[in-house]
Amino acid sequence: MLTSTVSAVSWEGNAAEGHCLLLDQTLLPHEELYRPYTDYVRLAAAIRDLVVRGAPAIGVAASYGVVLAAQQALKMPTGQERMAFFSRALETIALARPTAVNLKWAVERMEKVAGGKDIDPNLVTRLLEEAKTIQAEDIAGNAHMADLGAKLLEKNTTVLTYCNTGDLATGGIGTAFGVVRNGYVTGKVRHVYACETRPVMQGLRLTAWELERNKVPFTLICDNMAASLMRRNEIGAIFLGADRIARNGDVANKVGTYSLAVLAHHHRVPFYVVAPTSTFDLGLLSGEQIPIEQRSKEEILGALGSNRPTFDLPAYNPSFDVTPAALITAIVCEKGVIHGPSLDKLEALK
Amino acid sequence: MLTSTVSAVSWEGNAAEGHCLLLDQTLLPHEELYRPYTDYVRLAAAIRDLVVRGAPAIGVAASYGVVLAAQQALKMPTGQERMAFFSRALETIALARPTAVNLKWAVERMEKVAGGKDIDPNLVTRLLEEAKTIQAEDIAGNAHMADLGAKLLEKNTTVLTYCNTGDLATGGIGTAFGVVRNGYVTGKVRHVYACETRPVMQGLRLTAWELERNKVPFTLICDNMAASLMRRNEIGAIFLGADRIARNGDVANKVGTYSLAVLAHHHRVPFYVVAPTSTFDLGLLSGEQIPIEQRSKEEILGALGSNRPTFDLPAYNPSFDVTPAALITAIVCEKGVIHGPSLDKLEALK
Repeated sequence: MLTSTVSAVSWEGNAAEGHCLLLDQTLLPHEELYRPYTDYVRLAAAIRDLVVRGAPAIGVAASYGVVLAAQQALKMPTGQERMAFFSRALETIALARPTAVNLKWAVERMEKVAGGKDIDPNLVTRLLEEAKTIQAEDIAGNAHMADLGAKLLEKNTTVLTYCNTGDLATGGIGTAFGVVRNGYVTGKVRHVYACETRPVMQGLRLTAWELERNKVPFTLICDNMAASLMRRNEIGAIFLGADRIARNGDVANKVGTYSLAVLAHHHRVPFYVVAPTSTFDLGLLSGEQIPIEQRSKEEILGALGSNRPTFDLPAYNPSFDVTPAALITAIVCEKGVIHGPSLDKLEALK
Repeated sequence: MLTSTVSAVSWEGNAAEGHCLLLDQTLLPHEELYRPYTDYVRLAAAIRDLVVRGAPAIGVAASYGVVLAAQQALKMPTGQERMAFFSRALETIALARPTAVNLKWAVERMEKVAGGKDIDPNLVTRLLEEAKTIQAEDIAGNAHMADLGAKLLEKNTTVLTYCNTGDLATGGIGTAFGVVRNGYVTGKVRHVYACETRPVMQGLRLTAWELERNKVPFTLICDNMAASLMRRNEIGAIFLGADRIARNGDVANKVGTYSLAVLAHHHRVPFYVVAPTSTFDLGLLSGEQIPIEQRSKEEILGALGSNRPTFDLPAYNPSFDVTPAALITAIVCEKGVIHGPSLDKLEALK
């Protein structure tokens, strides 16, 4: 079985005195620096500032954030103060970023363990166990999805991938990236085209770094070059991840995903989304209801470096877009492959 | 009539001692620096290095380059040496960049004036007159295309544009950008979305600078965000330029153009190409025959700035792509509007 070669999120030490460790992804690929977090407020800020990103990884990070909040609550003198502190903390963590539902999902799961009762050292221990279970389930789900996804491929396929969906984006070996790695070692994947993924460059910075670590042959392209590769039949399949999947199979993912889905449809290239069920939000009827995070225009304008004009530049920076289910060949989750995703098929998962 | 507010290419002084002046577009939008050129070799290098870019602008620059070559040839002692020098110079200029046919077109037109005869001061004068005529024709063609293009629009349309096609890319007010400016002053265009245009960022650096100078309201987006704007019906029309148009109406233009054409087709957004007939290459049967320039991968990897990894990154950087005629609503040239471009309609232009 393939295992992750780098840990984006982990817990160091015991429940009483341990802390969360995050690989600072804003410094990659130049520097591999792990930062300790003992304060849930700093951890929530790290999620917001993309120190850790990727829907499953921020779910795992959030669950460790809840453990930190419980540790911090223990320092309060009264049960009322401890519970109020803990409750506010969970809200802060859940709201760190709006689009990926894994954050909310993880916080709600941890909240159930707490059960609305007073915080004591035993509870902190149980919360840490639950957080580790969430990560362990993600690792197992990743491995299973990697198998299921690779089975969808013919031998020697050239695959295109988008954003980053590997070790850095999950608790384990990744979602779409796990399929790519598994496909490479089993002879299904010959070559990978990685889109740079503007504006934050998760492809150029993170996926390239992971492909290099795992010795998978690849080529970086700008996002706007994918179409002409498809036109020349150089892309056999597209695999990417998801930040939230609505009940009808609509998928919110990194901005640019919808563009690739339309291009894949036009060129009859299979378009696969790989995501654990923690990314599914069956409470939303369609993708129209998924909140889309708007981020700072500096993420776009920063590309000018020292070449900035003296005047202000207006820019629009939605971090995600929504791809309708009709453009998706299949969704691969840890429970199986959903071909032609639809309301009925997603409801059948429950 | 609208006139250009900045001159990307011009000639300073007389034929005997004058020189070509280029606005160094690699320094924009931060700095507006004009560089004199007295040597055709340096001018050809400036074309290659994108000091001046845009198919019509490099056509004009190339014609001034031929004047410089004639000035330099005059310093040779014998007619044979002068003619050999001049002939080599024309080849160097024509080969500075491969995709935009305006370069070859301008050099061939200048060559006809020279007529294969010895170079004398009179010929230099006549060459300068021809180069100025080429620029004057481009200015007039730009103005006419701006009128023709704006007529295609309903009132208050939001237009999306790509790369840079304005004063900086032409001899005059631009191709697609001329339509945008004309449309704005006549109430046809309400707002402009400008795609940043990876990897060289002609949209973020140059089109934004021109929109700001001309007080046209605009918003910058990453190239991968155009699709979701189209899905939400926020784009009424797309206007962009061309580097070479084959006899069947296929268009080579900045990489990413084909992607936008497919997306426009899917969303039923009119897709207009604006280009003077100097961009038409009726000698080529289809876009498949257009040479596509491959540029350095550093144009892509440079986005990492100081965040470079220690290992080498493989990247693919085609500078252009080809859009089949079937995806183009109309081509606007100075001779008229070609709706549903095809072999017959382009041959009728001759």
